[in-house]
Amino acid sequence: MTADTTPTVRVLRVQCADATGIIHRVTGVLAAQGLNVIEQEEFVDAPTGRFFLRTAFTGAADDVAVAKAVADVVDDASTTVHVRPRQKRRIAILVTKEAHCVGDLLVRDFSGELNAEIACVVGNHETLRPLVERFGHPFVHVPSDGLSHAEHDAAVLDALDGYQVEFLVFAKYMRIVGQGFIDHYKHRIINIHHSFLPAFIGAKPYHQAYKRGVKIIGATAHFVTGDLDAGPIIAQDVVSVRHSHGLGDMIQSGRNVEKIVLARALRLVFDDRVFVHGNRTVIFD
Amino acid sequence: MTADTTPTVRVLRVQCADATGIIHRVTGVLAAQGLNVIEQEEFVDAPTGRFFLRTAFTGAADDVAVAKAVADVVDDASTTVHVRPRQKRRIAILVTKEAHCVGDLLVRDFSGELNAEIACVVGNHETLRPLVERFGHPFVHVPSDGLSHAEHDAAVLDALDGYQVEFLVFAKYMRIVGQGFIDHYKHRIINIHHSFLPAFIGAKPYHQAYKRGVKIIGATAHFVTGDLDAGPIIAQDVVSVRHSHGLGDMIQSGRNVEKIVLARALRLVFDDRVFVHGNRTVIFD
Amino acid sequence: MTADTTPTVRVLRVQCADATGIIHRVTGVLAAQGLNVIEQEEFVDAPTGRFFLRTAFTGAADDVAVAKAVADVVDDASTTVHVRPRQKRRIAILVTKEAHCVGDLLVRDFSGELNAEIACVVGNHETLRPLVERFGHPFVHVPSDGLSHAEHDAAVLDALDGYQVEFLVFAKYMRIVGQGFIDHYKHRIINIHHSFLPAFIGAKPYHQAYKRGVKIIGATAHFVTGDLDAGPIIAQDVVSVRHSHGLGDMIQSGRNVEKIVLARALRLVFDDRVFVHGNRTVIFD
Amino acid sequence: MTADTTPTVRVLRVQCADATGIIHRVTGVLAAQGLNVIEQEEFVDAPTGRFFLRTAFTGAADDVAVAKAVADVVDDASTTVHVRPRQKRRIAILVTKEAHCVGDLLVRDFSGELNAEIACVVGNHETLRPLVERFGHPFVHVPSDGLSHAEHDAAVLDALDGYQVEFLVFAKYMRIVGQGFIDHYKHRIINIHHSFLPAFIGAKPYHQAYKRGVKIIGATAHFVTGDLDAGPIIAQDVVSVRHSHGLGDMIQSGRNVEKIVLARALRLVFDDRVFVHGNRTVIFD
Repeated sequence: MTADTTPTVRVLRVQCADATGIIHRVTGVLAAQGLNVIEQEEFVDAPTGRFFLRTAFTGAADDVAVAKAVADVVDDASTTVHVRPRQKRRIAILVTKEAHCVGDLLVRDFSGELNAEIACVVGNHETLRPLVERFGHPFVHVPSDGLSHAEHDAAVLDALDGYQVEFLVFAKYMRIVGQGFIDHYKHRIINIHHSFLPAFIGAKPYHQAYKRGVKIIGATAHFVTGDLDAGPIIAQDVVSVRHSHGLGDMIQSGRNVEKIVLARALRLVFDDRVFVHGNRTVIFD
Repeated sequence: MTADTTPTVRVLRVQCADATGIIHRVTGVLAAQGLNVIEQEEFVDAPTGRFFLRTAFTGAADDVAVAKAVADVVDDASTTVHVRPRQKRRIAILVTKEAHCVGDLLVRDFSGELNAEIACVVGNHETLRPLVERFGHPFVHVPSDGLSHAEHDAAVLDALDGYQVEFLVFAKYMRIVGQGFIDHYKHRIINIHHSFLPAFIGAKPYHQAYKRGVKIIGATAHFVTGDLDAGPIIAQDVVSVRHSHGLGDMIQSGRNVEKIVLARALRLVFDDRVFVHGNRTVIFD
Repeated sequence: MTADTTPTVRVLRVQCADATGIIHRVTGVLAAQGLNVIEQEEFVDAPTGRFFLRTAFTGAADDVAVAKAVADVVDDASTTVHVRPRQKRRIAILVTKEAHCVGDLLVRDFSGELNAEIACVVGNHETLRPLVERFGHPFVHVPSDGLSHAEHDAAVLDALDGYQVEFLVFAKYMRIVGQGFIDHYKHRIINIHHSFLPAFIGAKPYHQAYKRGVKIIGATAHFVTGDLDAGPIIAQDVVSVRHSHGLGDMIQSGRNVEKIVLARALRLVFDDRVFVHGNRTVIFD
Repeated sequence: MTADTTPTVRVLRVQCADATGIIHRVTGVLAAQGLNVIEQEEFVDAPTGRFFLRTAFTGAADDVAVAKAVADVVDDASTTVHVRPRQKRRIAILVTKEAHCVGDLLVRDFSGELNAEIACVVGNHETLRPLVERFGHPFVHVPSDGLSHAEHDAAVLDALDGYQVEFLVFAKYMRIVGQGFIDHYKHRIINIHHSFLPAFIGAKPYHQAYKRGVKIIGATAHFVTGDLDAGPIIAQDVVSVRHSHGLGDMIQSGRNVEKIVLARALRLVFDDRVFVHGNRTVIFD
């Protein structure tokens, strides 16, 4: 996953029904336009007959024209084609009170390691304002007191409205958002869940894990869908725990995993390496 | 966890309510008898105030007398004390059709790496008889056709009766055993479950995992209790999977984890390193 | 890495200098012959400008004709093209005294999980004859007493001669073989080394690791080349160790890793997923 | 490793030659003073006959008096005994240009997760001043231009002098310090090395790892001694890499491991869980 950031690199992504000769036809479009493929990966999901292609290329190209030409040769009603320049994505980060995930992203941004541009941080509490503002980013407080879930969702959407972001990152945003909220950012909301899903769905997963006496704990980054904690998984990792690790130790170890898993997922998504396929993901890393 | 197999090494295990000076009193018993402690670990579970001690010692000792003397100085009604020489445990392995776990144990036994003596292998199918018999161990077929669950359990207990084993190892024994069966071998049945519990409880965990699109799969060795897949966990491990891994690949990768996790759990249990504490385990490794 | 074993699946592998339109031309060859691509992965190593392609396809095809047609459209002097049906590879396993790796392969073979056919096992000691023969495979003893290294190498090559194997698997074969031996099976000898190379090159890696006080140990499967322990790496894995783990515990833990890493490497190589690129490997898993 | 921060918790650490009854005698000292043991672990390193004990206790105690009483009952010339309250350690962090490790520690400090108090950050470049100062900590620039190694070491020691710190944390401090420097902080300098030592000792380990074609990379936290990269290892971890990961990807993945491993090591050391034993460590976690 060479992270070439030269401005003229473009990424083409195709998802469609598999058919003989698809790669030949798609690569033919690029060859005909004199474009130079520098990375290419494809995958056919055998059980569903679904084809996935990611191609990074250089050369003078019009995004819309390339996408149209590719769609024409694929000629399948279920096809989705995207072409976009490889550049930083504009994001908003949503938080509650915990600092470790957003802090990690802020430090990465500081040192130029984040392939995203942080437009703002939105919090339902004021706790993290000092951390965010010392990095020079706007912090928007949208309190939920006295609001219904739907009202708070709407207030957050309002707050986000002026920032024109492509992705939302739920960096320990301890709120359940409704379908209306999700529909605004379909497959563009990434959440970090503090368990290796589907273990410990729901509230207080570390408490559940401690009580169950597991020997590994973990974290899961996933797209947010209408099904709580059931969206397509992007990245997961785990860490071992021992009987001597109390609940506090497990939370501490888990936070290390959470922030790394979230950052890894963002890197993949923002570099156009992740396809959603039903409730699963296809990831070219 | 140095595995000294000198016959005169003994292991003392104490579980009781914590109290000031317990270690001083227990080590005093050993010191008074001139016994030489070569390994010692203790743990106090703060939330429950429970004390756990494992001591390996050498020297001329009477197991019963040491246990009694220790129990006397602990003087707590909830105390359990065990003293036993460190020697191979006599076990039976229960199987169905899959070879990887029992095959792994047979090879370890062949090369002297198993700290157990395999008395027999019991199968509800004939599939694995050739594998077991070529290693010179008895294979006992207890078919379940036409039997109720309780009747089959009873038939297996009957079959085991003559072998006088201390532990049962469920090496992919695809049967659910009843409480009566479990009571015969309380905390002496170790099962390998093909998921990182509590994810994917129940049947066909790899199918569930594939469908859910997880990025890690795993295995769990646990004591069998009356609650299906909910017994105290001894060991767990995981392995990464990719979108390109079909169900068959996941099963194959998972089997590698299963057999290693099971062997690791057996090594710990048979070396008296595992305490059961409610639904959790305390493990001195 | 769906392991389809339908006899008519073929795997095309191409390695050549990268050039615009290569994929288009190669897939054009397959499309022209009406062959159906079921898996395809390619990779361009940017620093060296080297192109790697693996394509699995079905349909009536002549291996030699397809390979020639592909080579013609690639038209680069450094190209290597292979086409072969996906079928079990014929292998010999070389051993010394340790049972865990060869035992693991024998059990996998027993249960049909090994994508290879074991032609024979060659040992420089008699130790493992009983294990091998109880699985019904020939065991060939080639003692090294009184022989120079070159003479023993020659004797082993002689012994292998009649078995017509494609790959040699060094399953804890504790001999260093000479260049002449290696040249007979270039990139077709796979060794398991008991450390996470390049740490602990050479003899007694666990002793070295114990002495160094590392917190992780590991194993490495690699192709054997003339440079000791420096051949292209296929697979590696590690396991954590603690201060309480003596040398014997480390060896025991390490063996678990060794056999799993070796089996994983064989699975990849025998399914034509591994390309050698100088001292590195490109692996489509 | 329950992280109780109640001020009256004290930790006793003993290292001495093993002898019969040591635990009995030491615990007798605590019992005689009415102190309540809340955590205790001991270990005897069999090959060297060395005894290690860590005891956390509560109750009214005089650190010096307890230490003296323990030393008296142990009565061995090689004994070291420490008693200290469990409280935050005062540290200085040394850096060069990379932000990820120091940034991680600053965020942990911000959210109260660091069991240390950051007295200052010293850099041989100005690069990280803005990051450090926005967290309100002093940044001291000690340039090395025109100085010999010994002169720069002396200048850094001078700069540290007024801060009265107990530990130095080398958070990607890309300087080799001399023996004189090390002697000032014996076993109190913790370095993070960007490889799983002893692989890739010396400069540019990721470049070495990329060139060698390894499938795992890692990081090592260790005490700094006079032998470059050979000090006692505290913590290590690894992450998998693929052929598609260029050097830049490996550096990025590696940084994730580096900061987590460093933080884990600090947590263990600052909670008095780490003993140095020659070139190895004994860690009660």
